[in-house]
Amino acid sequence: MSKGLPKRSEDYSLWYNELVKRADLAENSAVRGCMVIKPYGFSIWEKMQAELDRMFKKTGHSNAYFPLFIPKSYLSKEASHVEGFAKECAVVTHYRLKADDSGKGVIVDPEAALEEELIVRPTSETVIWSTYKNWVQSYRDLPLLINQWANVVRWEMRTRLFLRTSEFLWQEGHTAHETKKEAREETLRMMNVYAEFAENFMALPVIRGIKSESEKFAGAVDTYCIEAMMQDGKALQAGTSHFLGQNFAKAFDVKFAGRDGELEHVWGTSWGVSTRLMGALIMAHSDDNGLVLPPKLAPLQVVIIPIFRSDEELTAIRKKANEIMDALDPLGISVKFDDRDTFKPGWKFAEYELKGVPVRLAIGPRDLQHETVEMARRDDLSKTVVNTREENLTNRIKETLEDIQRSIYNKAKAFTKEKTTSVDSWEQFVSILENKGGFVAAHWDGTPETENQIKEKTKATIRCIPLDQKQEDGKCVFSGKPSKGRVLFAKAY
Amino acid sequence: MSKGLPKRSEDYSLWYNELVKRADLAENSAVRGCMVIKPYGFSIWEKMQAELDRMFKKTGHSNAYFPLFIPKSYLSKEASHVEGFAKECAVVTHYRLKADDSGKGVIVDPEAALEEELIVRPTSETVIWSTYKNWVQSYRDLPLLINQWANVVRWEMRTRLFLRTSEFLWQEGHTAHETKKEAREETLRMMNVYAEFAENFMALPVIRGIKSESEKFAGAVDTYCIEAMMQDGKALQAGTSHFLGQNFAKAFDVKFAGRDGELEHVWGTSWGVSTRLMGALIMAHSDDNGLVLPPKLAPLQVVIIPIFRSDEELTAIRKKANEIMDALDPLGISVKFDDRDTFKPGWKFAEYELKGVPVRLAIGPRDLQHETVEMARRDDLSKTVVNTREENLTNRIKETLEDIQRSIYNKAKAFTKEKTTSVDSWEQFVSILENKGGFVAAHWDGTPETENQIKEKTKATIRCIPLDQKQEDGKCVFSGKPSKGRVLFAKAY
Repeated sequence: MSKGLPKRSEDYSLWYNELVKRADLAENSAVRGCMVIKPYGFSIWEKMQAELDRMFKKTGHSNAYFPLFIPKSYLSKEASHVEGFAKECAVVTHYRLKADDSGKGVIVDPEAALEEELIVRPTSETVIWSTYKNWVQSYRDLPLLINQWANVVRWEMRTRLFLRTSEFLWQEGHTAHETKKEAREETLRMMNVYAEFAENFMALPVIRGIKSESEKFAGAVDTYCIEAMMQDGKALQAGTSHFLGQNFAKAFDVKFAGRDGELEHVWGTSWGVSTRLMGALIMAHSDDNGLVLPPKLAPLQVVIIPIFRSDEELTAIRKKANEIMDALDPLGISVKFDDRDTFKPGWKFAEYELKGVPVRLAIGPRDLQHETVEMARRDDLSKTVVNTREENLTNRIKETLEDIQRSIYNKAKAFTKEKTTSVDSWEQFVSILENKGGFVAAHWDGTPETENQIKEKTKATIRCIPLDQKQEDGKCVFSGKPSKGRVLFAKAY
Repeated sequence: MSKGLPKRSEDYSLWYNELVKRADLAENSAVRGCMVIKPYGFSIWEKMQAELDRMFKKTGHSNAYFPLFIPKSYLSKEASHVEGFAKECAVVTHYRLKADDSGKGVIVDPEAALEEELIVRPTSETVIWSTYKNWVQSYRDLPLLINQWANVVRWEMRTRLFLRTSEFLWQEGHTAHETKKEAREETLRMMNVYAEFAENFMALPVIRGIKSESEKFAGAVDTYCIEAMMQDGKALQAGTSHFLGQNFAKAFDVKFAGRDGELEHVWGTSWGVSTRLMGALIMAHSDDNGLVLPPKLAPLQVVIIPIFRSDEELTAIRKKANEIMDALDPLGISVKFDDRDTFKPGWKFAEYELKGVPVRLAIGPRDLQHETVEMARRDDLSKTVVNTREENLTNRIKETLEDIQRSIYNKAKAFTKEKTTSVDSWEQFVSILENKGGFVAAHWDGTPETENQIKEKTKATIRCIPLDQKQEDGKCVFSGKPSKGRVLFAKAY
């Protein structure tokens, strides 16, 4: 199976595409730019969803559901919002089909044109704030802490599975607050929830920061983000949290009677992560043999493969496998015994490597004799023989899973550090981007003009102004104008 | 709060609409026919989803995700399918907006017309079977047992919250099998899963049956269904499971190499339940005071309301409430202590009645003195005083929740039975439908012509041919022609 997987060093992009398809994660559909998320890929997404949902609820949020369609006029109510999204909107103009003249096909019924066209939501601020208007009268109705799991559509010309698709799945939180301070705190809280999820569950180290004016969300005052480094030296934005100020409250006239009885506009936030995280997860850890999954998100954590030549051997191995499974079950460790006789052990080894199952156990007749089990780790492909008389296999598996979770995080952390370079001249800036890639920490004069010129010349954008930015006098690498601290540039997905 | 709720006996329809809004379940949105599912309503739906998802996985199904959009030409591939859905399709024709001449609004960019229009999925058979074509080569690839949680759109002219909306949420299972027998078994299995879910979780008794030709799914060979009786004597279809035969396999050319090496078309099923179940849940059990929820689906199962006049009293009551909550928590019983001082106890009583919280505890200073708690049941509005010295309150609450679940099921079961009438003449048929409503069990000659005429004259349709139909010679109530058994007619939602 994995034999044919392209090598990362030769064609990273092809390696990614092939991996996504061969590991049964997703595939392109017949509908341009839309993907099919296959059962194995979806089961990883479900694990992400479950954990994120738990974290959202723990921080006081409830789920709700708002319409898929947005009346065209709503989009225009917030000026920069419509500017940001108008160019990639799927538009519903009719509500009926009818038979064509041949009677064999269907055509759009010209008599069923909508009075006002509907936009398939690219994001839901407008439809949600138009609803919040009726939900908020007094400060007692605040805060509104609501999240939605949904599909959204942004018409993309160049698409890539998970990373950029016309339709994608996501969650979008939309909150309304009494004060600016509370809304600002919420924005940061959710950025931190995303960062904790990325680091603790995806084993993905991230930089927490704030976007420059050119890169922020259309309609936000400030956009906070988490940025991660992929193995090819390109950055990936893994989640954003927007402080909306009173922009949408003003656009949709959402006011409340404050504690002093005065009418004021509500303060808002919105925040989201999407199936893009699947792309980040795949690209951050996987290798030329296939997926490497953090145990906390692996749909299957342990696989047991019997090495047998007769039914009697298989029966004896099955007994042992059942013991192991019974012991792992109460710990919530998922495990499968693959006793199919239609595939050889070698084929199965490659298959589960491709699928990223963290721990593989192999048991043959000789193992039964010596009371041993061969244990292989997916992350470093190492193998050890565990003597189950001398060692508690269950504990050993549990510890190994924990160690894999830690190790792949540490590996990615070291990689991100290695791929972060401070530069002080334009020549260095260009050279690092060309030859090494990664994050380039450089002084910037703070103007969108410089940012744009750098982007045009190098394709690198400001990924973020890190929240832990050091105050440090310097000169912009491009313009030479004064700067107060370094920002992170990178080429990005 | 509930004071203003209309009475069921006076205006059932208004009672339903008001209840849905006032209990914070859902509301109409600014987009015609689309609803907003509010957090409280959504939390009930989440409980339904979680249980159904568990049942699907237990029966071997995996979740996946397929595109929202369906190319227009796909719909036409199965003749009866397109006929059934063409009249209610939302059609995407353009992929971009641009600024209008005033620069203040946006218009659809005429240069961004799609080559082929896209239909927002009304159901996903076509897009899924076009994908299955690539997933199935040999009998070894079968069965495919896949489910999808998604939003779908059917353009409805007359909409009602949850019962009939242009966009709704649902799950749709789509399976592919090697043999007709297996597909038929799957169809029945999923109908039974729905019936068990309705009866055990929603406390909703259902009739299992098969649809007549006129009422079956567009593209199915047979449609199995579960039908429930609402308090106003109208029936509600609560779930359907379709045996597709080889219809979609033929339309999309999905073939496999069988065990004998011959190429054959795959056998298919599809099955779904939607947010319509919310409507059934509300209408089956609720009363003039508000919602009545089965404990297994109630987002909040127990509420504790303190009766206090001073902070000292509240502090003492809080101590007792905390003890109760700590004892309920390990049993997985959800409980809330509502100690807000901005609302009076009487207001809170009415509010939690409206929201359908199954058990309410009230504790005042005198209760502390006598070691008592007043416990009220939402289903029958009965109150008892529990002496916590003599009785284990935790057990009592647990048993009461179980008893409520049972009681509301039994009540609905008795009601359904009472509302089912066997009739043998056309006069009786008309009279029962007019005066009593409910299911009318009557002989029918088996022709769509008779079925149509009965529908035109009475608005009643054949809800189903019950699976437990007795073989019984009789004469069609309408045509007088021979019949082999009774079918269930009713007016329906």
